Amino acid sequence: MSNRKSGTQEIKVVRRVLDANDIMAGQNRRLFKKRNVFVLNMMSSPGSGKTTTLEKTLTRIMPEIRSAVIVGDICTTNDADRLACSGAPVVQINTDEFGGDCHLAAHVIEKALDGMDLDNLDLLIVENIGNLVCPAEFDIGEDCRVVVLSVTEGEDKPAKYPLMFRECDAALLNKIDLLPYLDYDRRAAVNTILQVHPGMPIFELSAKTEEGFEPWIEWLKNKVKSKVGAK
Amino acid sequence: MSNRKSGTQEIKVVRRVLDANDIMAGQNRRLFKKRNVFVLNMMSSPGSGKTTTLEKTLTRIMPEIRSAVIVGDICTTNDADRLACSGAPVVQINTDEFGGDCHLAAHVIEKALDGMDLDNLDLLIVENIGNLVCPAEFDIGEDCRVVVLSVTEGEDKPAKYPLMFRECDAALLNKIDLLPYLDYDRRAAVNTILQVHPGMPIFELSAKTEEGFEPWIEWLKNKVKSKVGAK
Repeated sequence: MSNRKSGTQEIKVVRRVLDANDIMAGQNRRLFKKRNVFVLNMMSSPGSGKTTTLEKTLTRIMPEIRSAVIVGDICTTNDADRLACSGAPVVQINTDEFGGDCHLAAHVIEKALDGMDLDNLDLLIVENIGNLVCPAEFDIGEDCRVVVLSVTEGEDKPAKYPLMFRECDAALLNKIDLLPYLDYDRRAAVNTILQVHPGMPIFELSAKTEEGFEPWIEWLKNKVKSKVGAK
Repeated sequence: MSNRKSGTQEIKVVRRVLDANDIMAGQNRRLFKKRNVFVLNMMSSPGSGKTTTLEKTLTRIMPEIRSAVIVGDICTTNDADRLACSGAPVVQINTDEFGGDCHLAAHVIEKALDGMDLDNLDLLIVENIGNLVCPAEFDIGEDCRVVVLSVTEGEDKPAKYPLMFRECDAALLNKIDLLPYLDYDRRAAVNTILQVHPGMPIFELSAKTEEGFEPWIEWLKNKVKSKVGAK
Protein backbone atom coordinates (compact mmCIF):
# COMPACT_ATOMS: atom_id res chain seq x y z
CA MET A 1 0.00 0.00 0.00
CA SER A 2 2.98 2.36 0.12
CA ASN A 3 2.30 4.86 -2.63
CA ARG A 4 4.63 7.63 -3.56
CA LYS A 5 5.63 9.58 -6.57
CA SER A 6 9.32 9.47 -5.88
CA GLY A 7 11.44 9.58 -2.77
CA THR A 8 10.75 10.28 0.82
CA GLN A 9 7.64 12.49 0.99
CA GLU A 10 5.10 9.77 0.34
CA ILE A 11 6.99 7.29 2.50
CA LYS A 12 6.46 9.70 5.40
CA VAL A 13 2.74 9.79 4.59
CA VAL A 14 2.58 6.01 4.70
CA ARG A 15 4.50 5.96 7.99
CA ARG A 16 1.96 8.36 9.51
CA VAL A 17 -0.92 6.17 8.38
CA LEU A 18 0.73 3.07 9.81
CA ASP A 19 1.57 4.87 13.07
CA ALA A 20 -2.08 5.94 13.44
CA ASN A 21 -3.15 2.38 12.71
CA ASP A 22 -0.80 1.02 15.36
CA ILE A 23 -2.35 3.28 18.01
CA MET A 24 -5.85 2.08 17.12
CA ALA A 25 -4.66 -1.54 16.99
CA GLY A 26 -3.27 -1.12 20.50
CA GLN A 27 -6.69 0.05 21.70
CA ASN A 28 -8.34 -2.96 20.09
CA ARG A 29 -5.77 -5.29 21.65
CA ARG A 30 -6.39 -3.90 25.14
CA LEU A 31 -10.15 -4.29 24.64
CA PHE A 32 -9.77 -7.91 23.48
CA LYS A 33 -7.54 -8.65 26.47
CA LYS A 34 -9.98 -7.07 28.91
CA ARG A 35 -12.91 -9.03 27.46
CA ASN A 36 -10.75 -12.17 27.21
CA VAL A 37 -11.39 -12.81 23.51
CA PHE A 38 -8.85 -14.49 21.25
CA VAL A 39 -8.63 -12.77 17.85
CA LEU A 40 -7.46 -14.54 14.71
CA ASN A 41 -6.64 -12.60 11.53
CA MET A 42 -6.93 -14.85 8.46
CA MET A 43 -5.36 -13.61 5.24
CA SER A 44 -4.72 -14.89 1.71
CA SER A 45 -4.93 -14.20 -2.01
CA PRO A 46 -8.42 -14.00 -3.51
CA GLY A 47 -9.92 -17.45 -3.99
CA SER A 48 -7.49 -19.47 -1.89
CA GLY A 49 -10.34 -20.87 0.23
CA LYS A 50 -10.56 -18.74 3.38
CA THR A 51 -14.34 -18.86 3.58
CA THR A 52 -14.67 -22.62 3.03
CA THR A 53 -11.89 -23.19 5.57
CA LEU A 54 -13.76 -21.05 8.09
CA GLU A 55 -17.10 -22.77 7.41
CA LYS A 56 -15.54 -26.15 8.15
CA THR A 57 -13.56 -24.79 11.10
CA LEU A 58 -16.61 -23.23 12.78
CA THR A 59 -18.55 -26.48 12.41
CA ARG A 60 -15.82 -28.31 14.28
CA ILE A 61 -15.06 -25.85 17.09
CA MET A 62 -18.57 -24.58 17.96
CA PRO A 63 -20.26 -24.56 20.41
CA GLU A 64 -17.23 -25.61 22.50
CA ILE A 65 -15.49 -22.41 21.43
CA ARG A 66 -17.97 -19.55 21.18
CA SER A 67 -17.05 -17.85 17.91
CA ALA A 68 -17.91 -14.81 15.80
CA VAL A 69 -16.61 -13.59 12.47
CA ILE A 70 -15.86 -10.24 10.89
CA VAL A 71 -15.68 -10.64 7.11
CA GLY A 72 -13.93 -8.08 4.94
CA ASP A 73 -14.71 -7.69 1.26
CA ILE A 74 -14.62 -4.77 -1.12
CA CYS A 75 -18.10 -5.64 -2.39
CA THR A 76 -20.84 -8.27 -1.87
CA THR A 77 -22.01 -10.10 1.24
CA ASN A 78 -21.37 -13.53 -0.32
CA ASP A 79 -18.94 -14.68 2.37
CA ALA A 80 -21.01 -13.40 5.29
CA ASP A 81 -24.07 -15.18 3.92
CA ARG A 82 -22.12 -18.45 3.73
CA LEU A 83 -20.59 -18.09 7.19
CA ALA A 84 -23.88 -17.13 8.85
CA CYS A 85 -25.08 -20.69 8.17
CA SER A 86 -22.65 -21.85 10.89
CA GLY A 87 -24.78 -20.08 13.50
CA ALA A 88 -21.90 -17.80 14.47
CA PRO A 89 -22.60 -14.05 14.57
CA VAL A 90 -21.16 -12.52 11.39
CA VAL A 91 -20.41 -8.89 10.60
CA GLN A 92 -19.71 -8.00 6.97
CA ILE A 93 -17.45 -5.06 6.21
CA ASN A 94 -17.60 -3.72 2.65
CA THR A 95 -14.59 -1.48 2.12
CA ASP A 96 -16.31 -0.17 -1.00
CA GLU A 97 -17.95 2.28 1.38
CA PHE A 98 -14.48 3.53 2.40
CA GLY A 99 -13.14 3.89 -1.16
CA GLY A 100 -12.41 0.22 -1.86
CA ASP A 101 -9.67 -0.39 0.70
CA CYS A 102 -7.33 -3.28 -0.06
CA HIS A 103 -6.99 -4.32 3.60
CA LEU A 104 -8.81 -4.10 6.93
CA ALA A 105 -7.40 -1.39 9.17
CA ALA A 106 -7.68 -1.28 12.96
CA HIS A 107 -10.31 1.49 13.00
CA VAL A 108 -12.56 -0.53 10.69
CA ILE A 109 -12.39 -3.48 13.08
CA GLU A 110 -13.19 -1.16 15.99
CA LYS A 111 -16.35 -0.03 14.18
CA ALA A 112 -17.37 -3.59 13.35
CA LEU A 113 -17.22 -4.48 17.07
CA ASP A 114 -20.13 -2.15 17.75
CA GLY A 115 -22.96 -4.22 19.22
CA MET A 116 -20.92 -7.41 19.36
CA ASP A 117 -21.31 -9.32 22.65
CA LEU A 118 -17.61 -9.82 23.43
CA ASP A 119 -18.29 -11.09 26.95
CA ASN A 120 -19.96 -14.18 25.54
CA LEU A 121 -17.26 -14.86 23.00
CA ASP A 122 -14.05 -16.89 23.09
CA LEU A 123 -12.87 -16.43 19.54
CA LEU A 124 -13.25 -13.62 17.02
CA ILE A 125 -12.10 -14.51 13.52
CA VAL A 126 -11.36 -11.75 11.03
CA GLU A 127 -11.48 -12.88 7.41
CA ASN A 128 -9.41 -10.20 5.74
CA ILE A 129 -9.65 -8.83 2.17
CA GLY A 130 -8.27 -11.27 -0.42
CA ASN A 131 -4.82 -9.76 -0.93
CA LEU A 132 -1.42 -11.30 -0.26
CA VAL A 133 0.32 -7.92 0.09
CA CYS A 134 -1.31 -5.04 1.97
CA PRO A 135 -3.22 -6.71 4.86
CA ALA A 136 0.11 -7.97 6.28
CA GLU A 137 1.13 -4.36 6.92
CA PHE A 138 -1.85 -3.52 9.14
CA ASP A 139 -2.01 -4.63 12.76
CA ILE A 140 -5.66 -4.87 13.81
CA GLY A 141 -5.03 -5.84 17.43
CA GLU A 142 -5.16 -9.58 16.77
CA ASP A 143 -3.52 -12.34 18.83
CA CYS A 144 -2.63 -14.53 15.91
CA ARG A 145 -2.30 -14.35 12.13
CA VAL A 146 -2.79 -17.20 9.71
CA VAL A 147 -2.16 -17.21 5.96
CA VAL A 148 -4.00 -19.55 3.60
CA LEU A 149 -2.18 -20.52 0.40
CA SER A 150 -3.87 -22.63 -2.24
CA VAL A 151 -1.62 -25.21 -3.89
CA THR A 152 -2.99 -23.96 -7.23
CA GLU A 153 -1.09 -20.71 -6.64
CA GLY A 154 2.30 -22.41 -7.05
CA GLU A 155 5.24 -23.17 -4.79
CA ASP A 156 7.09 -19.86 -4.98
CA LYS A 157 4.54 -17.45 -3.50
CA PRO A 158 6.11 -17.32 0.00
CA ALA A 159 9.38 -16.11 -1.59
CA LYS A 160 7.53 -13.55 -3.71
CA TYR A 161 5.32 -12.26 -0.88
CA PRO A 162 7.65 -12.71 2.10
CA LEU A 163 6.13 -10.14 4.47
CA MET A 164 2.85 -12.06 4.68
CA PHE A 165 4.61 -15.30 5.53
CA ARG A 166 6.99 -13.62 7.96
CA GLU A 167 4.14 -11.88 9.79
CA CYS A 168 1.88 -14.93 10.13
CA ASP A 169 2.00 -17.52 12.90
CA ALA A 170 0.88 -20.45 10.76
CA ALA A 171 0.28 -21.33 7.11
CA LEU A 172 -2.56 -23.44 5.75
CA LEU A 173 -1.65 -25.10 2.44
CA ASN A 174 -5.15 -25.57 1.08
CA LYS A 175 -6.78 -27.52 -1.80
CA ILE A 176 -4.47 -30.55 -1.52
CA ASP A 177 -7.33 -32.57 -3.09
CA LEU A 178 -6.19 -31.02 -6.39
CA LEU A 179 -2.56 -32.21 -6.09
CA PRO A 180 -3.01 -35.21 -8.43
CA TYR A 181 -3.95 -32.80 -11.22
CA LEU A 182 -1.18 -30.23 -10.71
CA ASP A 183 2.55 -30.07 -11.41
CA TYR A 184 3.18 -29.16 -7.81
CA ASP A 185 6.26 -29.85 -5.69
CA ARG A 186 4.87 -30.14 -2.16
CA ARG A 187 8.33 -30.33 -0.60
CA ALA A 188 9.48 -27.21 -2.48
CA ALA A 189 6.44 -25.28 -1.23
CA VAL A 190 7.06 -26.28 2.39
CA ASN A 191 10.78 -25.52 2.09
CA THR A 192 10.06 -22.08 0.63
CA ILE A 193 7.77 -21.25 3.53
CA LEU A 194 10.37 -22.43 6.04
CA GLN A 195 13.11 -20.42 4.36
CA VAL A 196 11.02 -17.26 4.76
CA HIS A 197 9.77 -18.16 8.25
CA PRO A 198 11.86 -20.87 9.97
CA GLY A 199 9.82 -23.13 12.20
CA MET A 200 6.45 -21.89 10.91
CA PRO A 201 3.65 -24.42 11.58
CA ILE A 202 2.28 -25.59 8.21
CA PHE A 203 -1.02 -27.45 7.84
CA GLU A 204 -1.54 -29.21 4.53
CA LEU A 205 -5.26 -29.69 4.12
CA SER A 206 -8.31 -29.58 1.90
CA ALA A 207 -11.18 -27.44 3.11
CA LYS A 208 -13.34 -29.21 0.53
CA THR A 209 -12.70 -32.83 1.58
CA GLU A 210 -11.51 -31.93 5.14
CA GLU A 211 -8.42 -34.11 4.63
CA GLY A 212 -5.69 -32.99 7.03
CA PHE A 213 -8.11 -30.81 9.02
CA GLU A 214 -7.59 -32.23 12.51
CA PRO A 215 -4.07 -30.91 13.23
CA TRP A 216 -5.19 -27.39 12.25
CA ILE A 217 -8.25 -27.58 14.51
CA GLU A 218 -6.17 -28.87 17.42
CA TRP A 219 -3.60 -26.12 16.93
CA LEU A 220 -6.31 -23.43 16.83
CA LYS A 221 -8.14 -24.80 19.89
CA ASN A 222 -4.90 -24.83 21.87
CA LYS A 223 -4.13 -21.27 20.84
CA VAL A 224 -7.59 -20.07 21.91
CA LYS A 225 -7.53 -21.99 25.20
CA SER A 226 -4.10 -20.68 26.10
CA LYS A 227 -5.65 -17.20 26.24
CA VAL A 228 -9.27 -17.68 27.25
CA GLY A 229 -9.03 -21.02 29.06
CA ALA A 230 -10.27 -19.69 32.36
CA LYS A 231 -13.29 -17.84 30.96
CA MET B 1 -4.36 1.21 -1.49
CA SER B 2 -6.39 4.07 -0.04
CA ASN B 3 -5.24 4.29 3.56
CA ARG B 4 -6.66 6.66 6.10
CA LYS B 5 -7.26 6.82 9.78
CA SER B 6 -10.74 8.23 9.49
CA GLY B 7 -12.43 10.67 7.20
CA THR B 8 -11.25 12.97 4.48
CA GLN B 9 -7.62 13.83 5.24
CA GLU B 10 -6.10 10.60 4.06
CA ILE B 11 -8.43 10.44 1.09
CA LYS B 12 -6.92 13.74 -0.04
CA VAL B 13 -3.44 12.24 0.34
CA VAL B 14 -4.41 9.29 -1.83
CA ARG B 15 -5.95 11.63 -4.41
CA ARG B 16 -2.67 13.56 -4.59
CA VAL B 17 -0.71 10.35 -5.14
CA LEU B 18 -3.09 9.26 -7.88
CA ASP B 19 -3.00 12.71 -9.51
CA ALA B 20 0.81 12.59 -9.56
CA ASN B 21 0.66 9.08 -11.02
CA ASP B 22 -1.72 10.24 -13.76
CA ILE B 23 0.70 12.95 -14.84
CA MET B 24 3.55 10.45 -15.10
CA ALA B 25 1.28 7.96 -16.90
CA GLY B 26 0.43 10.64 -19.43
CA GLN B 27 4.15 11.16 -20.10
CA ASN B 28 4.62 7.42 -20.59
CA ARG B 29 1.61 7.27 -22.93
CA ARG B 30 2.98 10.08 -25.10
CA LEU B 31 6.36 8.33 -25.28
CA PHE B 32 4.77 5.01 -26.27
CA LYS B 33 2.71 6.76 -28.95
CA LYS B 34 5.76 8.57 -30.33
CA ARG B 35 7.76 5.33 -30.49
CA ASN B 36 4.73 3.44 -31.81
CA VAL B 37 4.77 0.73 -29.15
CA PHE B 38 1.61 -1.02 -27.95
CA VAL B 39 1.62 -1.51 -24.18
CA LEU B 40 -0.34 -4.25 -22.43
CA ASN B 41 -0.80 -4.24 -18.65
CA MET B 42 -1.54 -7.76 -17.39
CA MET B 43 -2.97 -8.08 -13.88
CA SER B 44 -4.33 -10.82 -11.59
CA SER B 45 -4.27 -12.40 -8.15
CA PRO B 46 -1.05 -14.18 -7.13
CA GLY B 47 -0.74 -17.56 -8.80
CA SER B 48 -3.47 -17.22 -11.42
CA GLY B 49 -1.02 -18.01 -14.21
CA LYS B 50 0.16 -14.71 -15.66
CA THR B 51 3.73 -15.88 -16.27
CA THR B 52 2.80 -19.18 -17.91
CA THR B 53 0.25 -17.35 -20.06
CA LEU B 54 2.94 -14.89 -21.15
CA GLU B 55 5.48 -17.64 -21.86
CA LYS B 56 3.02 -19.36 -24.19
CA THR B 57 1.86 -16.06 -25.68
CA LEU B 58 5.40 -14.88 -26.51
CA THR B 59 6.19 -18.22 -28.18
CA ARG B 60 3.22 -17.73 -30.49
CA ILE B 61 3.55 -14.05 -31.39
CA MET B 62 7.34 -13.67 -31.74
CA PRO B 63 9.19 -12.83 -33.94
CA GLU B 64 6.20 -11.56 -35.94
CA ILE B 65 5.45 -9.13 -33.13
CA ARG B 66 8.67 -7.84 -31.58
CA SER B 67 7.99 -8.02 -27.84
CA ALA B 68 9.56 -7.10 -24.50
CA VAL B 69 8.37 -7.61 -20.93
CA ILE B 70 8.56 -5.64 -17.71
CA VAL B 71 7.89 -7.97 -14.78
CA GLY B 72 6.83 -6.64 -11.40
CA ASP B 73 7.34 -8.61 -8.20
CA ILE B 74 7.92 -7.64 -4.62
CA CYS B 75 10.84 -10.10 -4.38
CA THR B 76 12.63 -12.70 -6.54
CA THR B 77 13.48 -12.78 -10.24
CA ASN B 78 11.66 -16.10 -10.78
CA ASP B 79 9.24 -14.74 -13.39
CA ALA B 80 11.89 -12.79 -15.30
CA ASP B 81 14.09 -15.89 -15.44
CA ARG B 82 11.22 -17.90 -16.90
CA LEU B 83 10.22 -15.23 -19.43
CA ALA B 84 13.80 -14.61 -20.58
CA CYS B 85 13.76 -18.11 -22.12
CA SER B 86 11.37 -16.75 -24.77
CA GLY B 87 14.17 -14.61 -26.16
CA ALA B 88 12.26 -11.41 -25.42
CA PRO B 89 14.11 -8.67 -23.52
CA VAL B 90 12.91 -8.79 -19.90
CA VAL B 91 13.27 -6.17 -17.17
CA GLN B 92 12.52 -7.27 -13.60
CA ILE B 93 11.21 -4.71 -11.14
CA ASN B 94 11.43 -5.68 -7.46
CA THR B 95 9.24 -3.30 -5.50
CA ASP B 96 10.98 -4.53 -2.36
CA GLU B 97 13.53 -1.83 -3.15
CA PHE B 98 10.73 0.78 -2.95
CA GLY B 99 9.23 -0.49 0.32
CA GLY B 100 7.32 -3.48 -1.06
CA ASP B 101 4.78 -1.68 -3.24
CA CYS B 102 1.61 -3.63 -3.98
CA HIS B 103 1.31 -2.31 -7.56
CA LEU B 104 3.42 -0.88 -10.37
CA ALA B 105 3.16 2.90 -10.58
CA ALA B 106 3.83 4.98 -13.70
CA HIS B 107 7.18 6.33 -12.45
CA VAL B 108 8.46 2.80 -11.87
CA ILE B 109 7.60 1.88 -15.47
CA GLU B 110 9.36 5.02 -16.67
CA LYS B 111 12.53 3.94 -14.85
CA ALA B 112 12.29 0.40 -16.23
CA LEU B 113 12.25 1.80 -19.78
CA ASP B 114 15.78 3.08 -19.36
CA GLY B 115 17.96 1.40 -21.97
CA MET B 116 15.04 -0.36 -23.67
CA ASP B 117 15.14 -0.14 -27.49
CA LEU B 118 11.57 1.04 -28.04
CA ASP B 119 12.15 1.79 -31.72
CA ASN B 120 12.64 -1.89 -32.44
CA LEU B 121 9.62 -2.99 -30.43
CA ASP B 122 5.96 -3.50 -31.33
CA LEU B 123 4.65 -4.74 -28.00
CA LEU B 124 5.65 -4.06 -24.40
CA ILE B 125 3.93 -6.32 -21.88
CA VAL B 126 3.86 -5.32 -18.22
CA GLU B 127 3.26 -8.24 -15.87
CA ASN B 128 1.97 -6.43 -12.79
CA ILE B 129 2.28 -7.42 -9.10
CA GLY B 130 -0.05 -10.31 -8.17
CA ASN B 131 -2.87 -8.34 -6.57
CA LEU B 132 -6.51 -8.10 -7.66
CA VAL B 133 -7.07 -4.75 -5.92
CA CYS B 134 -4.44 -2.00 -6.05
CA PRO B 135 -2.88 -2.29 -9.54
CA ALA B 136 -6.27 -1.45 -11.10
CA GLU B 137 -6.06 2.02 -9.52
CA PHE B 138 -2.76 2.95 -11.19
CA ASP B 139 -2.59 4.04 -14.83
CA ILE B 140 0.90 3.30 -16.18
CA GLY B 141 0.33 4.74 -19.66
CA GLU B 142 -0.76 1.44 -21.20
CA ASP B 143 -2.98 0.96 -24.25
CA CYS B 144 -4.79 -2.06 -22.95
CA ARG B 145 -5.43 -3.90 -19.69
CA VAL B 146 -6.07 -7.60 -19.30
CA VAL B 147 -7.04 -9.47 -16.14
CA VAL B 148 -6.25 -13.16 -15.66
CA LEU B 149 -8.59 -15.11 -13.37
CA SER B 150 -7.92 -18.73 -12.50
CA VAL B 151 -11.01 -20.93 -12.35
CA THR B 152 -9.65 -22.23 -9.02
CA GLU B 153 -10.39 -18.79 -7.52
CA GLY B 154 -14.16 -19.29 -7.80
CA GLU B 155 -16.95 -17.70 -9.81
CA ASP B 156 -17.67 -14.65 -7.64
CA LYS B 157 -14.37 -12.78 -7.79
CA PRO B 158 -15.47 -10.27 -10.46
CA ALA B 159 -18.34 -9.19 -8.16
CA LYS B 160 -16.00 -8.95 -5.17
CA TYR B 161 -13.22 -7.08 -7.00
CA PRO B 162 -15.27 -5.06 -9.51
CA LEU B 163 -12.81 -2.23 -10.20
CA MET B 164 -10.30 -4.63 -11.74
CA PHE B 165 -12.89 -6.11 -14.08
CA ARG B 166 -14.37 -2.73 -14.94
CA GLU B 167 -10.95 -1.27 -15.76
CA CYS B 168 -9.75 -4.14 -17.94
CA ASP B 169 -10.40 -4.58 -21.67
CA ALA B 170 -10.47 -8.37 -21.61
CA ALA B 171 -10.51 -11.25 -19.13
CA LEU B 172 -8.63 -14.54 -19.44
CA LEU B 173 -10.33 -17.36 -17.52
CA ASN B 174 -7.30 -19.58 -17.01
CA LYS B 175 -6.66 -23.18 -15.85
CA ILE B 176 -9.75 -24.64 -17.54
CA ASP B 177 -7.84 -27.97 -17.64
CA LEU B 178 -8.76 -28.23 -13.92
CA LEU B 179 -12.53 -27.84 -14.47
CA PRO B 180 -13.27 -31.59 -14.25
CA TYR B 181 -11.92 -31.56 -10.69
CA LEU B 182 -13.67 -28.43 -9.42
CA ASP B 183 -17.22 -27.52 -8.40
CA TYR B 184 -17.18 -24.64 -10.81
CA ASP B 185 -20.08 -23.04 -12.65
CA ARG B 186 -18.53 -21.76 -15.87
CA ARG B 187 -21.70 -19.95 -16.92
CA ALA B 188 -22.00 -18.21 -13.53
CA ALA B 189 -18.40 -16.99 -13.80
CA VAL B 190 -18.94 -15.57 -17.29
CA ASN B 191 -22.25 -13.98 -16.27
CA THR B 192 -20.63 -12.36 -13.23
CA ILE B 193 -17.92 -10.84 -15.41
CA LEU B 194 -20.51 -9.54 -17.87
CA GLN B 195 -22.62 -8.05 -15.10
CA VAL B 196 -19.63 -6.06 -13.89
CA HIS B 197 -18.39 -5.20 -17.41
CA PRO B 198 -21.05 -5.71 -20.10
CA GLY B 199 -19.61 -6.87 -23.41
CA MET B 200 -16.16 -7.67 -22.00
CA PRO B 201 -14.25 -10.13 -24.21
CA ILE B 202 -13.63 -13.32 -22.21
CA PHE B 203 -11.14 -15.99 -23.25
CA GLU B 204 -11.52 -19.34 -21.51
CA LEU B 205 -8.19 -21.11 -21.82
CA SER B 206 -5.49 -23.21 -20.21
CA ALA B 207 -1.99 -21.77 -20.29
CA LYS B 208 -0.75 -25.24 -19.34
CA THR B 209 -2.38 -27.25 -22.16
CA GLU B 210 -2.89 -24.25 -24.50
CA GLU B 211 -6.53 -25.24 -24.98
CA GLY B 212 -8.52 -22.19 -26.09
CA PHE B 213 -5.36 -20.17 -26.75
CA GLU B 214 -5.95 -19.19 -30.40
CA PRO B 215 -8.81 -16.66 -29.90
CA TRP B 216 -6.74 -14.83 -27.27
CA ILE B 217 -3.68 -14.69 -29.54
CA GLU B 218 -5.77 -13.42 -32.47
CA TRP B 219 -7.39 -10.75 -30.29
CA LEU B 220 -4.00 -9.58 -28.99
CA LYS B 221 -2.41 -9.54 -32.44
CA ASN B 222 -5.27 -7.45 -33.79
CA LYS B 223 -4.99 -5.02 -30.90
CA VAL B 224 -1.24 -4.58 -31.47
CA LYS B 225 -1.58 -4.25 -35.23
CA SER B 226 -4.33 -1.66 -34.92
CA LYS B 227 -1.77 0.62 -33.27
CA VAL B 228 1.60 -0.31 -34.73
CA GLY B 229 0.51 -1.82 -38.05
CA ALA B 230 2.39 0.68 -40.15
CA LYS B 231 5.70 0.41 -38.28
